[in-house]
Amino acid sequence: MRLATIHADEGTQAVGVDLSQDEPRFVRLRDEDLGSRPSMIDILSEPDGLHRAESAFNAGRAAGDFVEGRLAAPVPLPGKVLCIGLNYRDHAVETGAEIPSEPVCFVKFSSCVIGPGDPIVLPRVSSKVDFEAELVVVIGKRGKHISKESAFEHVAGYTIGHDVSARDWQKGRPGGQWTLGKNPDSFAPLGPYLVTPDEVGDPHALDVTLSLNGQTMQSGSTKEFIFGIDELIAHVSQLITLEPGDVIFTGTPPGVGDARTPPVYLQGGDHVEISIDDLGTLSNPVVAEPD
Amino acid sequence: MRLATIHADEGTQAVGVDLSQDEPRFVRLRDEDLGSRPSMIDILSEPDGLHRAESAFNAGRAAGDFVEGRLAAPVPLPGKVLCIGLNYRDHAVETGAEIPSEPVCFVKFSSCVIGPGDPIVLPRVSSKVDFEAELVVVIGKRGKHISKESAFEHVAGYTIGHDVSARDWQKGRPGGQWTLGKNPDSFAPLGPYLVTPDEVGDPHALDVTLSLNGQTMQSGSTKEFIFGIDELIAHVSQLITLEPGDVIFTGTPPGVGDARTPPVYLQGGDHVEISIDDLGTLSNPVVAEPD
Repeated sequence: MRLATIHADEGTQAVGVDLSQDEPRFVRLRDEDLGSRPSMIDILSEPDGLHRAESAFNAGRAAGDFVEGRLAAPVPLPGKVLCIGLNYRDHAVETGAEIPSEPVCFVKFSSCVIGPGDPIVLPRVSSKVDFEAELVVVIGKRGKHISKESAFEHVAGYTIGHDVSARDWQKGRPGGQWTLGKNPDSFAPLGPYLVTPDEVGDPHALDVTLSLNGQTMQSGSTKEFIFGIDELIAHVSQLITLEPGDVIFTGTPPGVGDARTPPVYLQGGDHVEISIDDLGTLSNPVVAEPD
Repeated sequence: MRLATIHADEGTQAVGVDLSQDEPRFVRLRDEDLGSRPSMIDILSEPDGLHRAESAFNAGRAAGDFVEGRLAAPVPLPGKVLCIGLNYRDHAVETGAEIPSEPVCFVKFSSCVIGPGDPIVLPRVSSKVDFEAELVVVIGKRGKHISKESAFEHVAGYTIGHDVSARDWQKGRPGGQWTLGKNPDSFAPLGPYLVTPDEVGDPHALDVTLSLNGQTMQSGSTKEFIFGIDELIAHVSQLITLEPGDVIFTGTPPGVGDARTPPVYLQGGDHVEISIDDLGTLSNPVVAEPD
């Protein structure tokens, strides 16, 4: 099943996505417990919520209960946006970093999240905004001290994330924290859909590509993960309770602009597309911040 | 004015705090626009919200409209918890770090926030949990590219924060990010009150003290700030829009446990109290995480 969040005239809501026609159609999810306009976090927080959503999706599609709207991020305001750095062997090599012996974690504010088609805004004060295509895990079940063996029980599904990064604010600054480079407004595009695991192949063997103005810049496979999704969940949940709707950005494959010769940075007017097997394409324009 | 958030039988709500008696009394804030049980973010998001709250506070106190409840964090779930590291000259020296040439920023998840009296839970996987007393700024007005000159217009008030830090997860880890050391559950006690600037002396000359089981461990003054509140707001808002209810932890004075000889770390059964001039005392017990 593919779920999305849309901005509709009647309000923002989670919907099912029917891809059987040329254009995606959004199916209303009516459920007596979840209500007629549940949010994605409502669905994920309900025990059995994904099964309820699936029943509602099938019934709504059969009844032709479609709703028009504009795609938002599947989880528009996650409780947590936890990100992993340097998680592809070949990208760690590219940046000159050591292969980490444990996951490198950083945080994006939830307010950085934007949806498909929303503009990535280049801060006036940065001239080195870079792109990073990422597989994103959406948590569906609360947990702490989650074992590696049970980690996938906590995964509601997957989507695509763009870990936009202002390199001139991420690196070479006092204290060495990546915070300001990773957290400018609009720096976490997410979408288009939350795809449940049954519709996704091996999450550790997905092709990830990013194109800038139609030219492929990043191309990799989650086969190159240093730490698998189960290891990431086990590692962070030693310290942090994961909640339904939390998202984990799992790191980026090689080809980022900052590691190129000459380097390539995003410019106003650019267009970035990220595609991952089974998850579709996340597409965002790039605009300069107005003066 | 002092505002608090309390958990009352009838629901969590922002209240005014009357300190004219021996025990604090919580005054209901009834306002036709804000409703009868506004949240702190409701108040701060309303253009004239603090004035409305003050009128409601005065009317409620005069009418004896008190409500019983247990203190929560003044902003229980801030949109952003932005933290500044190494912002006291004397603490930077103590940790052996260079005096930073610009603010060092890191993030805590909003879900780390706990209220006065709530337990700080020591993660099973850390043996080096340290204390850090901090002045916290609460944002009251949305803004980006805020000038240093207008920064205080964006400050709704102040409270006390405890930047609990697992040193063995903060430092010496691959990638150098402080994330996992700063973000375990319960690691951001906040409170007791939001105190508006008219009731606070010069925020750059407040005494900050922390006691552990009654013994003073940290004692400093915000006079030692390397970057003032206005500089912090101007700096981060170059990249990040600040919103009502966002909080900024402004760094800690000297005396942290990790810099002592021998080092001192929190233990189950400990009790930590932080006091700041005009802001009261934030008090939290420490418990070991159950197996």
